[in-house]
Amino acid sequence: MCNDCKFRQCMAELEIENKIQDECGVFGISAPGIENLAKDVYFGLHSLQHRGQDSAGIAANDGGKISFYKKLGLVTEVFNDDIMEGLKGDICVGHVRAATKMQGHESYSQPFVVHSKMGSLAIGHNGQLVNAKYVREQLQEDGCVFHTTSDAETIAVLIAKLMKNCTVEEAIAQACLRVQGAFALVITIGNKLIGVRDPHGIRPLCIGKTKNGYVISSESCAFPLQGAELVRDVQPGEIVVIENGEINSVKYATVPVRGCSFEYVYTARTDSKIDGTVVYMSRREAGRILAREDDVEADMVIAVPDSGTVAAIGYAEESGIPFGEGFVKSRYVGRTFIQPTQEMRVQSVKMKLNVLEENVRGKRIVMIDDSIVRGTTSDKIIKLLKDAGALEVHMRLSSPPVMYSCYMGTDTPDRKNLIAANMSIEEIRQKISADSLRYISIEGLKESIGLGDNICLACFTGEYPVELYDIEHETGEKTFVGEYD
Amino acid sequence: MCNDCKFRQCMAELEIENKIQDECGVFGISAPGIENLAKDVYFGLHSLQHRGQDSAGIAANDGGKISFYKKLGLVTEVFNDDIMEGLKGDICVGHVRAATKMQGHESYSQPFVVHSKMGSLAIGHNGQLVNAKYVREQLQEDGCVFHTTSDAETIAVLIAKLMKNCTVEEAIAQACLRVQGAFALVITIGNKLIGVRDPHGIRPLCIGKTKNGYVISSESCAFPLQGAELVRDVQPGEIVVIENGEINSVKYATVPVRGCSFEYVYTARTDSKIDGTVVYMSRREAGRILAREDDVEADMVIAVPDSGTVAAIGYAEESGIPFGEGFVKSRYVGRTFIQPTQEMRVQSVKMKLNVLEENVRGKRIVMIDDSIVRGTTSDKIIKLLKDAGALEVHMRLSSPPVMYSCYMGTDTPDRKNLIAANMSIEEIRQKISADSLRYISIEGLKESIGLGDNICLACFTGEYPVELYDIEHETGEKTFVGEYD
Amino acid sequence: MCNDCKFRQCMAELEIENKIQDECGVFGISAPGIENLAKDVYFGLHSLQHRGQDSAGIAANDGGKISFYKKLGLVTEVFNDDIMEGLKGDICVGHVRAATKMQGHESYSQPFVVHSKMGSLAIGHNGQLVNAKYVREQLQEDGCVFHTTSDAETIAVLIAKLMKNCTVEEAIAQACLRVQGAFALVITIGNKLIGVRDPHGIRPLCIGKTKNGYVISSESCAFPLQGAELVRDVQPGEIVVIENGEINSVKYATVPVRGCSFEYVYTARTDSKIDGTVVYMSRREAGRILAREDDVEADMVIAVPDSGTVAAIGYAEESGIPFGEGFVKSRYVGRTFIQPTQEMRVQSVKMKLNVLEENVRGKRIVMIDDSIVRGTTSDKIIKLLKDAGALEVHMRLSSPPVMYSCYMGTDTPDRKNLIAANMSIEEIRQKISADSLRYISIEGLKESIGLGDNICLACFTGEYPVELYDIEHETGEKTFVGEYD
Amino acid sequence: MCNDCKFRQCMAELEIENKIQDECGVFGISAPGIENLAKDVYFGLHSLQHRGQDSAGIAANDGGKISFYKKLGLVTEVFNDDIMEGLKGDICVGHVRAATKMQGHESYSQPFVVHSKMGSLAIGHNGQLVNAKYVREQLQEDGCVFHTTSDAETIAVLIAKLMKNCTVEEAIAQACLRVQGAFALVITIGNKLIGVRDPHGIRPLCIGKTKNGYVISSESCAFPLQGAELVRDVQPGEIVVIENGEINSVKYATVPVRGCSFEYVYTARTDSKIDGTVVYMSRREAGRILAREDDVEADMVIAVPDSGTVAAIGYAEESGIPFGEGFVKSRYVGRTFIQPTQEMRVQSVKMKLNVLEENVRGKRIVMIDDSIVRGTTSDKIIKLLKDAGALEVHMRLSSPPVMYSCYMGTDTPDRKNLIAANMSIEEIRQKISADSLRYISIEGLKESIGLGDNICLACFTGEYPVELYDIEHETGEKTFVGEYD
Repeated sequence: MCNDCKFRQCMAELEIENKIQDECGVFGISAPGIENLAKDVYFGLHSLQHRGQDSAGIAANDGGKISFYKKLGLVTEVFNDDIMEGLKGDICVGHVRAATKMQGHESYSQPFVVHSKMGSLAIGHNGQLVNAKYVREQLQEDGCVFHTTSDAETIAVLIAKLMKNCTVEEAIAQACLRVQGAFALVITIGNKLIGVRDPHGIRPLCIGKTKNGYVISSESCAFPLQGAELVRDVQPGEIVVIENGEINSVKYATVPVRGCSFEYVYTARTDSKIDGTVVYMSRREAGRILAREDDVEADMVIAVPDSGTVAAIGYAEESGIPFGEGFVKSRYVGRTFIQPTQEMRVQSVKMKLNVLEENVRGKRIVMIDDSIVRGTTSDKIIKLLKDAGALEVHMRLSSPPVMYSCYMGTDTPDRKNLIAANMSIEEIRQKISADSLRYISIEGLKESIGLGDNICLACFTGEYPVELYDIEHETGEKTFVGEYD
Repeated sequence: MCNDCKFRQCMAELEIENKIQDECGVFGISAPGIENLAKDVYFGLHSLQHRGQDSAGIAANDGGKISFYKKLGLVTEVFNDDIMEGLKGDICVGHVRAATKMQGHESYSQPFVVHSKMGSLAIGHNGQLVNAKYVREQLQEDGCVFHTTSDAETIAVLIAKLMKNCTVEEAIAQACLRVQGAFALVITIGNKLIGVRDPHGIRPLCIGKTKNGYVISSESCAFPLQGAELVRDVQPGEIVVIENGEINSVKYATVPVRGCSFEYVYTARTDSKIDGTVVYMSRREAGRILAREDDVEADMVIAVPDSGTVAAIGYAEESGIPFGEGFVKSRYVGRTFIQPTQEMRVQSVKMKLNVLEENVRGKRIVMIDDSIVRGTTSDKIIKLLKDAGALEVHMRLSSPPVMYSCYMGTDTPDRKNLIAANMSIEEIRQKISADSLRYISIEGLKESIGLGDNICLACFTGEYPVELYDIEHETGEKTFVGEYD
Repeated sequence: MCNDCKFRQCMAELEIENKIQDECGVFGISAPGIENLAKDVYFGLHSLQHRGQDSAGIAANDGGKISFYKKLGLVTEVFNDDIMEGLKGDICVGHVRAATKMQGHESYSQPFVVHSKMGSLAIGHNGQLVNAKYVREQLQEDGCVFHTTSDAETIAVLIAKLMKNCTVEEAIAQACLRVQGAFALVITIGNKLIGVRDPHGIRPLCIGKTKNGYVISSESCAFPLQGAELVRDVQPGEIVVIENGEINSVKYATVPVRGCSFEYVYTARTDSKIDGTVVYMSRREAGRILAREDDVEADMVIAVPDSGTVAAIGYAEESGIPFGEGFVKSRYVGRTFIQPTQEMRVQSVKMKLNVLEENVRGKRIVMIDDSIVRGTTSDKIIKLLKDAGALEVHMRLSSPPVMYSCYMGTDTPDRKNLIAANMSIEEIRQKISADSLRYISIEGLKESIGLGDNICLACFTGEYPVELYDIEHETGEKTFVGEYD
Repeated sequence: MCNDCKFRQCMAELEIENKIQDECGVFGISAPGIENLAKDVYFGLHSLQHRGQDSAGIAANDGGKISFYKKLGLVTEVFNDDIMEGLKGDICVGHVRAATKMQGHESYSQPFVVHSKMGSLAIGHNGQLVNAKYVREQLQEDGCVFHTTSDAETIAVLIAKLMKNCTVEEAIAQACLRVQGAFALVITIGNKLIGVRDPHGIRPLCIGKTKNGYVISSESCAFPLQGAELVRDVQPGEIVVIENGEINSVKYATVPVRGCSFEYVYTARTDSKIDGTVVYMSRREAGRILAREDDVEADMVIAVPDSGTVAAIGYAEESGIPFGEGFVKSRYVGRTFIQPTQEMRVQSVKMKLNVLEENVRGKRIVMIDDSIVRGTTSDKIIKLLKDAGALEVHMRLSSPPVMYSCYMGTDTPDRKNLIAANMSIEEIRQKISADSLRYISIEGLKESIGLGDNICLACFTGEYPVELYDIEHETGEKTFVGEYD
């Protein structure tokens, strides 16, 4: 357990919903001859902060010599000008991380920097491997050691091991075929900035063009601040190598594309464009489809802020029921360093949400959220509305029931804690005291994203795009894998 | 200047608009026999954090013995469980502060605790006195000393001075007649919790009832988290004394009421109710009135987040033009500890706002904000929209032009920095490159608040409710004072 | 209690002896036209750090405008270059403080800065008033308030009160006659640096000449680092005013001099010269006298480091018994942030002292310390020596038995905790398992200091130089006051 | 360069002498079934703090599962009770480190914990390898990666690599034959605590017995606080394995013993016993020998505190010239966070040393120090004495001239900065303005230590006990290696 963390008493219990945790964000930049790129990474990570708030790090590559700094905390907490001054280099990579319970320790902060026969290598990783344990054991058999169980270190050690007999690109390609699961990587070694996406393209990664070079980012929402233009997504199964201002590409695998659908539902920022789809548009469309699939009569459409807002606007447009605000969200709720009293704990949700009584009183309300995961707060929110005089509350979700854990980078809880894996929709409705409860259909969600079958729906269907190797070996159970394998 | 502060490099330059700064928030609680009320104050201040983010403090009164803790920082940064444990008392007062340039020093943190002949007294103050310098000089003539030029200390010393010959209530009443300007006070001395509002009721203050006692708060938005019900506002010119579970009232002045209109426009939280008006309702109504006063043709109504949102919803409802989202606001913009590069500085506003290109392209847009103060960012926001393909941008403000500085607690810039004091509306329109620019009328704003003439409109009209004594003595100029004086 | 402090778990229990706590140190400097004197105060306070380790502060007077910074911590912990930059002024005063239990709070840090009719005044105080409560009550009767119960604030408020009718010097003189007890003050107001010593000269204060002006310091040991030469002591009952490079003097009282003898025994640094006596010389002489008063046969003289070292050298010289080292003192013992295990607690003294077994084995030892206060560790030290094979341990003290508490600035424990107030010398000897125990005689101590009757011996004799007004009023008991009053 | 460090402005320039920097200290403990041993390591490291003040770390082995915490700072700064609680295990190892310029970064803190095929392994290292670069390159050739260039990581990776085919003990033995230089290691893996000393026994390491198990420590001075008794030194070329309360020994190499002589001169604490010699005794003996080799006439022997004190006492005893104190050393000089003024820089040494003027005036003085390394402060100290009226100052050193850099763990400066490598003794005497200057002879130093030829004298003679492999490969120059190779 992390000793730095224990002083932080998170407001987890007071969260509106123990949402699926965000994942990680990676960012890289190359601009030959421009030395202070670490600043650009800083602002790039800032734009990706929604993908992970637990630690941040930047590695700066100055002609092959890599310096780095990483620490627990938000981007703005980790760095300052003095630190930035020490991070010189015209290729830089950065990382923001959402710590899982297993890996809260400071030593899990990324990027990882390792020194190999071929020189120093820095790597940042977003995703989750499904056979990391197996890969590590194989490498340990061969005498390798690990400082952590981080996937990033596993991949770095594997690449270094493979590099002794081939080029960097070949080593990365081989490594990417030996590890399985979801991964989007930014790497720097020598004078190269490298972006890699897993064969199925589960995690997003895209390329931008700046005035002086290129950036690689988990999401395109980081580009406007850089003055960068979106060039294209890194392709599933592609290694993109940026060197001396030029882009080269290696395609190391060709399998069906399975981009994470939950990125569109919740994870990504609304102003990002992933594999051709603008997240905002897919969310609004999901709201519209939800309305088309619905027939409830109501006076006002409201959102659970902020995750339901875009879909609610879409729902209102399509249904003709006016959009309104039901809640004020506290701006300063985050970490709190004191234990709330028992009384506050009971009425916990009030810390974050305040109902606009005058606006909901006497109304029949459609309330939109993006998903129900554990289902521990929807009841409290509905009670707030009813206590304020709402006549009816009809809950609508812009994603289908979340019934399976993700093992590919989204930190969903264990199945036994997923309410939809354990209750029928009617049971859930009763538990949360909604007057009605509806989820968007799987077909509806697919339609809203607009990428056909090229998306991963495992958390809704259980059809994982890869075999869950480590899990299966541990539990002896076979996981369901999609049709194409 | 505060030495603690200089390490904090604020993102002021990157702010969407150097808005009028929030002011201060006060909170008090009395629940006889319940010892750990400091926690309730902590959460109360948390709910008032939007009124001041520079320092926080709590004083706990344990049978007349007052312990306290205060420091620069957010409520969550200042306190922890260990500190809370040291703050025992069944009457507590707290304060959050927005530091002005003059008073950034830690020693200006509130509450102030002074030890007088009548015992220890803790005081928290929201507002601004217009004759503080004069009052201090009079007291200094009499041999008193001051540790700061804080209004709170001035009032505390004055009360203590007066108390030597009379009751606490009488001393407070006399003090409140000698100081002039805006003040909302929470005070504790002996076994009393006292709330005071200035004669004109410029700053808000209200009373809530909890299970075990009473709370006094700058805004009622703090009550739901306390499980408290709004009882009523403290009246302008009233001293409310809560003692042993009972409320007593002293009316020390009767002059026309002049509640700050800017609280409704911007300062207060939307879920607060001030002097009978719910802030959310007045803002939506302002949007509606703005629409009624308008005749522009457009395709979408958007808000400058978050200050324009409620009015934009009202405008959309009234005008029939659909409400949409034009921007995504970065969730993590706050303090940053590094200097942005020059390039970023140029495109500064992008750090905070990202335009939803696909949503605005090809559209004629009405963009609502609450106010323009310095006018340094509206041009950048409009440029963002135009660059993204918006055909027209019509800017609308839910408050009239801000033409005069406030000397009563809202930290507006000097007149020479108020754009509307120096340019015509058409000049402003050209400067910000809007296709049209309109402000709500003064009559419209008054209508939206619904309190008739009982509001202060000085920042729009220059008709101050009190004579600006210190300013006049310093400058030799006469300030305009409203008709009723 | 101070909330900052509770995180610091002092090693008090592990101290060699819960010695009489050091007091406070004051330092002032004036060098017309030289702006960055705060740095000199920093180094001056550094030289006085042995007088107080709990808080430090500097106030800088720039033409009457005083800025200041003060905080809990060592001088090196409190200040940095950024803070120093904010402290501009060609007159500065500083303070280091040893917090008493009652006054651990940050708000008790000095210097105190108050703003009066005559301008801003900063004051630093070393000593303790015996009628502070009475003086405060009188001032409170008159409507004054206090932020603390600090003697420094009491004196500042009193001076300010008196100043309304007279000059600064007159006000200080009057104030010094109304307060009673021990005080050495540095004050700055207007363009004056002022040093004051109480009528009996209980606490030390001396004047030094630098290249560009003057310094005032609790001890002359601060002068070499400043490149300053000792000019003379501030006289008991004297107010020294340094203004525009000139010294003026006001003698406000003439009573018998009673300089604290414990400064020579323990408090002051050995390289200081107080009232004409070099502390090192008086300590070595005390060791010699102790030897002359003694007749023990032994093989080696050792010291309890470091408080007994100088006297041990003197004892060795006079007795002819060779001086040796019995212990190694840990360099890094100070604050520790973890709870030692029970086992360590038992053998606590080992944390600080390690016996040099080979050096003491088989020897008859004379062990010198400066004093026994609580008597809780001498037994452990002697046991260490015996366990290491010492044949005999003869304990000798370079001060007489400490039998009375000090109320004049040395933070001695309550009488009930003074071992010599509760046991005979033979009982103490048995308790600490010494083979013999001897204290220097009172006459011997006086001889070592060489100032005749002009010293305060109250902690040994109970003959206080002033009436303990507040204590007497609280307890109703009359304190013994020396013959001259 | 370490970003954490740059905020610390060390007083290096103000140091009495930029002494040879201390090295590192290691500590291990095993007490089957006792869970909270981390506390004992804390206090053990505290006792070894003089060996390294830059970072501290503890690893706790709980049945093979290793948790750890390490950070820049003193032991007391790095740990607190909360952290300690997280470090459960009945085998623990710890480390204090003196950072070299190259390796100031936090990631170089020890112990290193790596996860290998055989389980997790924690290692702490004192010393310096002379072929680390070569070993790392060989391992990198084989596909291994390194996170740092730390010798400790190098050894850990090498052991792990070798372990894949043999037992832990065999792997360690093989590793110890492949690395060359000075090393004293504490290791834990599985249920073993292991201590290792290099073939020549250059760095010290010893075993102690506690009530419940065993401790291993760089120096025996850590034992009294643990209630431990010194059992014996780990032998040069020996691996000691403590498991389930039993000690087993593997002798992996037999070459001539070459214990570092500088440990006796300066590094070790005086109360430690290394390879049978008590450090205090060897230092006092060196003083006596120095006196016997001398013939100066003088009035007083003084020490440069604290490094010359023991030798000065020995010198005084042997010569009959009385021992006295010439200086008072400031207790609080350490880190300072502000830039001293130019004037202070000039007279820098005064910050640390204050001359006792009255004690040195008119006297002929013999001043003892342990060594002159750079020779940048002796002149200032002698000037202080002369300015205070000393008639003559005869400088004497208890070690021979330091003429060669150490590459085996003592952080001596480069040869070009060693004054004795660049000047004759007479030139040095003139530079420091001593009336005479004498060093102990090499034979004298050997006699004082009493271990015959079994010591390393490389810094005095250039006869290194091992070939400086990496250095030779880098520079192409052959280093002189002692006769036995």
